[in-house]
Amino acid sequence: MSAVNRRIVLDRRPTGVPLPEHFKRDDQAMPAPGHGQFRVRNLLLSIDPAQRGWVNAGGNYSQPVAIGAVMRSLAVGVVDSSECADVAVGEHLYGWFGWQDFCIATPQDIVRRVDPLQAPLTAAVGVLGITGLTAYLALTKIGAPQRGETVIVSTAAGAVGSIVGQVARRLGCFVVGIAGSEEKAAVCKREFGYHEALNYKSGFNTAAVRARCPHGADVFFDNTSGAIADAVFPVMNLRGRVIQCGTAAEPVWDPPPAGPRRDREILVKRLRHEGFIVFDHLAEFPAVAATLAQWIRDGLLRYRDDVEQGLDRAPAALAGLYQGENQGKKIIRL
Amino acid sequence: MSAVNRRIVLDRRPTGVPLPEHFKRDDQAMPAPGHGQFRVRNLLLSIDPAQRGWVNAGGNYSQPVAIGAVMRSLAVGVVDSSECADVAVGEHLYGWFGWQDFCIATPQDIVRRVDPLQAPLTAAVGVLGITGLTAYLALTKIGAPQRGETVIVSTAAGAVGSIVGQVARRLGCFVVGIAGSEEKAAVCKREFGYHEALNYKSGFNTAAVRARCPHGADVFFDNTSGAIADAVFPVMNLRGRVIQCGTAAEPVWDPPPAGPRRDREILVKRLRHEGFIVFDHLAEFPAVAATLAQWIRDGLLRYRDDVEQGLDRAPAALAGLYQGENQGKKIIRL
Repeated sequence: MSAVNRRIVLDRRPTGVPLPEHFKRDDQAMPAPGHGQFRVRNLLLSIDPAQRGWVNAGGNYSQPVAIGAVMRSLAVGVVDSSECADVAVGEHLYGWFGWQDFCIATPQDIVRRVDPLQAPLTAAVGVLGITGLTAYLALTKIGAPQRGETVIVSTAAGAVGSIVGQVARRLGCFVVGIAGSEEKAAVCKREFGYHEALNYKSGFNTAAVRARCPHGADVFFDNTSGAIADAVFPVMNLRGRVIQCGTAAEPVWDPPPAGPRRDREILVKRLRHEGFIVFDHLAEFPAVAATLAQWIRDGLLRYRDDVEQGLDRAPAALAGLYQGENQGKKIIRL
Repeated sequence: MSAVNRRIVLDRRPTGVPLPEHFKRDDQAMPAPGHGQFRVRNLLLSIDPAQRGWVNAGGNYSQPVAIGAVMRSLAVGVVDSSECADVAVGEHLYGWFGWQDFCIATPQDIVRRVDPLQAPLTAAVGVLGITGLTAYLALTKIGAPQRGETVIVSTAAGAVGSIVGQVARRLGCFVVGIAGSEEKAAVCKREFGYHEALNYKSGFNTAAVRARCPHGADVFFDNTSGAIADAVFPVMNLRGRVIQCGTAAEPVWDPPPAGPRRDREILVKRLRHEGFIVFDHLAEFPAVAATLAQWIRDGLLRYRDDVEQGLDRAPAALAGLYQGENQGKKIIRL
């Protein structure tokens, strides 16, 4: 075991998308767990769009990461030392272990205990982590799609969107994806359950969306905001539901960017537009993860991992998310 | 009985707010009911902000009024001739009887049968009509305010807002109103149950809203959209509910005006923003009207009628609604 714990800390606070220049390495001596604590050796880091919000200054759902602190991140690791009665050496855990090789943690840092036999370990950090749980829970709780309804999804080929498509298809919906290239649109239809898919970088507007949604849209699973969402809103049907799950298309929100007001559309069509944060639903993680893991074992749910090797790749991997560079769930293997 | 039925018809289609120049008189011979029909003599016409949407070309929840057709309007009238087994001469009805002295109607034009002893007849067209029912149902169904929560209301001194304030107060909420003058703000506090009130025409911004909402806002009953709503959104609390009940602050919605995007605020705070149209809830009218009528008889619910005399005043009265000229529910007495 190395005598050094490699760590990546927040060096400067970004106002928009975090870039590699906002982080720096700050290694420390190997820590040891105190009473009630345990030490996790990180195996896989989860790179998530939500991390932007965790480093921005304000207006978010959690306290921002402090300057000089290890970058907040979900990870899957294995316990290699424990002074905590509830946690055994050798256990695999999914939790708040940060951009570092080793984390001193307590039970409240655990999001889910991972059975490595349930599914491949990368799944634990992706499709069975907040990515898949977000897709499943936001779609079913806010979207509540009914058989035969049309579900439209932005960043459809992304880590969340690729699961949304398949879940919506399994629920009997007509599913339309919006992605950032012809290739990604093709993948949506070939692999991720989408009946139709559009490339938002070419000929994309409300008419194009309407053409792929012959019966309009009942549920809009929006990960982007911005011009993509503007094109979709007019296609929403009466009593449509808009799930705001991300805002990836707009780099800066302080102050908010301008766009067309939606209030009249919301009023006239009785739309419901609601925000979703998966951490409100922690209690449902084990049950939903078990459902999704069963679908994986039964060959009913496909997912793509986009794995890079090495802690130092984490900052660039995060920045790349907002450029649409990833193909599936971005993971850093340590 | 006059041998002529005076009627006001739509002459030209407005793109925004309807003005007197969009209407004209088009009297006809007195009509007689055919089999299954009855004739209503209108007593009181309801002047409603929603009428704008009924004459605009598209994007609304009902078919637009045709050029040359009698202006669509709710009214209270008395049956003076009937060839319909279900409707008796002398009955008072609230329904779709239009801007005219007499209406040939069928039972499907009735919104509610009115007991003139239940409350003053003007109440039937206002606080016990769509005005009060909108206030009660939108607040309780979408807003679902809990005791101790803060409810903020735009056009608080208006026909709907004045009822919202009192209902929210009775539900144990802290109630903050936004109105268009110091005088209206004072009326909100003195008569309509508001704990605090702001004049949006003087020193109005997010800081001013925040100062009147020491615990933030949990429910926003929005009748305006536009700059007023922009000032309120940042004050919303986690899991706040925004009821879109009107969009009176913006005269034209085709194309939609620009404003700050709210998607990030909706996401981060898990807000729910939902449109409300009272006609979705017709089945609940009798029960809610009975509740509100009881409150009126018990002296627990105040309402203001703003009554003008004469059919020909209707177009100007409607235009005046969007200028904030009315003090309470605008009614035309015939």
